[in-house]
Amino acid sequence: MTGADREGISLEELALAARNHAMPYEALRYDVTPVGLHYLLIHYDIPDVDVSAFRLSVGGHVETPLELTLDALRAMPSTTLAVTMECAGNGRALLEPRPVSQPWLLGAVGNAEWTGVPLRDVLAGAGVREGALEVLFTGRDRGVEGDIEQAYERSLPLDEAMREDVLLAFEMNWGSLLPQHGFPLRILVPGWYGMASVKWLERVTVLAEPFEGYQMATSYRMREDPDDPGEPITRIFPRSLMIPPGIPEFATRARIAEPGTHRLEGRAWSGFGRIERVEVSTDDGVTWADAVLGPEPASAFGWRAWSFDWRAEPGEHVLCCRATDSTGLTQPREPEWNVGGYRNTAVQRVTVLVR
Amino acid sequence: MTGADREGISLEELALAARNHAMPYEALRYDVTPVGLHYLLIHYDIPDVDVSAFRLSVGGHVETPLELTLDALRAMPSTTLAVTMECAGNGRALLEPRPVSQPWLLGAVGNAEWTGVPLRDVLAGAGVREGALEVLFTGRDRGVEGDIEQAYERSLPLDEAMREDVLLAFEMNWGSLLPQHGFPLRILVPGWYGMASVKWLERVTVLAEPFEGYQMATSYRMREDPDDPGEPITRIFPRSLMIPPGIPEFATRARIAEPGTHRLEGRAWSGFGRIERVEVSTDDGVTWADAVLGPEPASAFGWRAWSFDWRAEPGEHVLCCRATDSTGLTQPREPEWNVGGYRNTAVQRVTVLVR
Repeated sequence: MTGADREGISLEELALAARNHAMPYEALRYDVTPVGLHYLLIHYDIPDVDVSAFRLSVGGHVETPLELTLDALRAMPSTTLAVTMECAGNGRALLEPRPVSQPWLLGAVGNAEWTGVPLRDVLAGAGVREGALEVLFTGRDRGVEGDIEQAYERSLPLDEAMREDVLLAFEMNWGSLLPQHGFPLRILVPGWYGMASVKWLERVTVLAEPFEGYQMATSYRMREDPDDPGEPITRIFPRSLMIPPGIPEFATRARIAEPGTHRLEGRAWSGFGRIERVEVSTDDGVTWADAVLGPEPASAFGWRAWSFDWRAEPGEHVLCCRATDSTGLTQPREPEWNVGGYRNTAVQRVTVLVR
Repeated sequence: MTGADREGISLEELALAARNHAMPYEALRYDVTPVGLHYLLIHYDIPDVDVSAFRLSVGGHVETPLELTLDALRAMPSTTLAVTMECAGNGRALLEPRPVSQPWLLGAVGNAEWTGVPLRDVLAGAGVREGALEVLFTGRDRGVEGDIEQAYERSLPLDEAMREDVLLAFEMNWGSLLPQHGFPLRILVPGWYGMASVKWLERVTVLAEPFEGYQMATSYRMREDPDDPGEPITRIFPRSLMIPPGIPEFATRARIAEPGTHRLEGRAWSGFGRIERVEVSTDDGVTWADAVLGPEPASAFGWRAWSFDWRAEPGEHVLCCRATDSTGLTQPREPEWNVGGYRNTAVQRVTVLVR
């Protein structure tokens, strides 16, 4: 990977990269990403929430608006799901020209065990009225984006919001949510890019018409040019990543490995279907061979392990991996450029010097 | 802060920034930095350590070399200290020209509660022999740096290593060390920059002569030019940081605030002495006024809270803060450039648009 022929990253983009943490690739070794290594994308500031005063408002197009304390939510039947979450902008910094936003390379991912109450159980308590179309989730985090002062908020179609695995989550990896992951409460939408899993959730509003806020109408859309309204981004397209073999050079992160057999290991995931195939190329995508898949993940939207034995000979090699899911979706060789820099699932390329 | 007149950051530097997490400035609100928000600087890869096979070797210039399990260490009397840790490269990306390494803005800091066994108790068990000069700490993390393949290792003068607050730490914030913080064991050297607190500690070696490894002789030195051998970097120079007031603009992190009184809050720390004074400027350093200091921290090397009421009037303002410690050390207005980009403690400048 070289930056020589690209426009350099600005200090503003660097400020985003510093606070929005990526998962280091070697953390792919953990099925459940340890606390602090899961990716973070925080649009504005992490809010300071007084949990003793916290109430979740549930209102809008419902029979009975509710105000729920965290204790009331915790007293309801809860469920725990291992879910792979990925930012829709993962891979953005590898696009040319680079769309200016959080400059992700490929680390905007993590797999965590989330515990919470199915949203539909809470909505059943409120009574969704005839004619409801969407459910809006409003966070407590405020900022300015696209010249609009706003709280971060996103909506889901009603049928998605009523899925049994959409959770009002208050725990991650069996501990209380950390501030940066939405303490005390967030929505969790398995299979969708992270933008849907609104953090620091304050308000759930059932709507009888589509929500047209900034994060729906302007952001998170696949747009070919600035005038293109584009299609909304929803589910996670398949991706696979590998743990780079060998050891790194500090400043460049270039990899150096010894000749011999290396077991390449990684994870693959998709928001559309189960992972059915992972292929590896050790010649920069000229030829491909099947990796060995690990067991089916326990949850539908958790990532799946894979491995591949690579007989490394001296010289420089470019390793790639490619996932295919049960719907036939796979990873392209080259990115599909778009205005917002979303959904770049082009195959990972890892250059390794064997010596 | 603008990047317009600077050389852009390369993708290699971005790869470092993505994996070496900064503390977001709003996390200054927490006296103890929550897990996952403390800064991380990992020279190579996070190693995968099998704790059941783990032994700490204590050897070199001692009477009785030791091999200690984690359980053996945990069975010894332990202590817990709140310690502010900072990377020696914090502020590097604000230097011009920018030294190429991990491109820190100002977030390479955190304050954690570390639990462990005083190193000197373990050294007493091994029996330090006459003529000992230094203690070398060798981590399990391997990589290439300055063309040298190496495990990360650093030494301390014997008198520093024998301080009662230098710990073999196995817990952080009352939980087992996380992989990225050195699991299962690290050394903790309060008051020194983070480079001294070697993670994934495998071996403690008492030396009768100075250690001249890469991280001592080449790296972590204040050098005016590449031929200057420079002085070694040791303790943390005073710094203060503030929580940026108002709300951010997403892409630029520019701050927007309403007119009226804002309570500016932050933290200050020094590895040389107690924090005696924090000053605030609301006119980009032309005039300064004293902030109100919070209580003395419980541990000598924990950070100290401060606050300052700012009456914000419409317009653009540049806020600064400046710490002075009990030895008289303070923060300069402008950075002192050096080859490695270390110890840039020039005052933080936060531009706020009041409207």
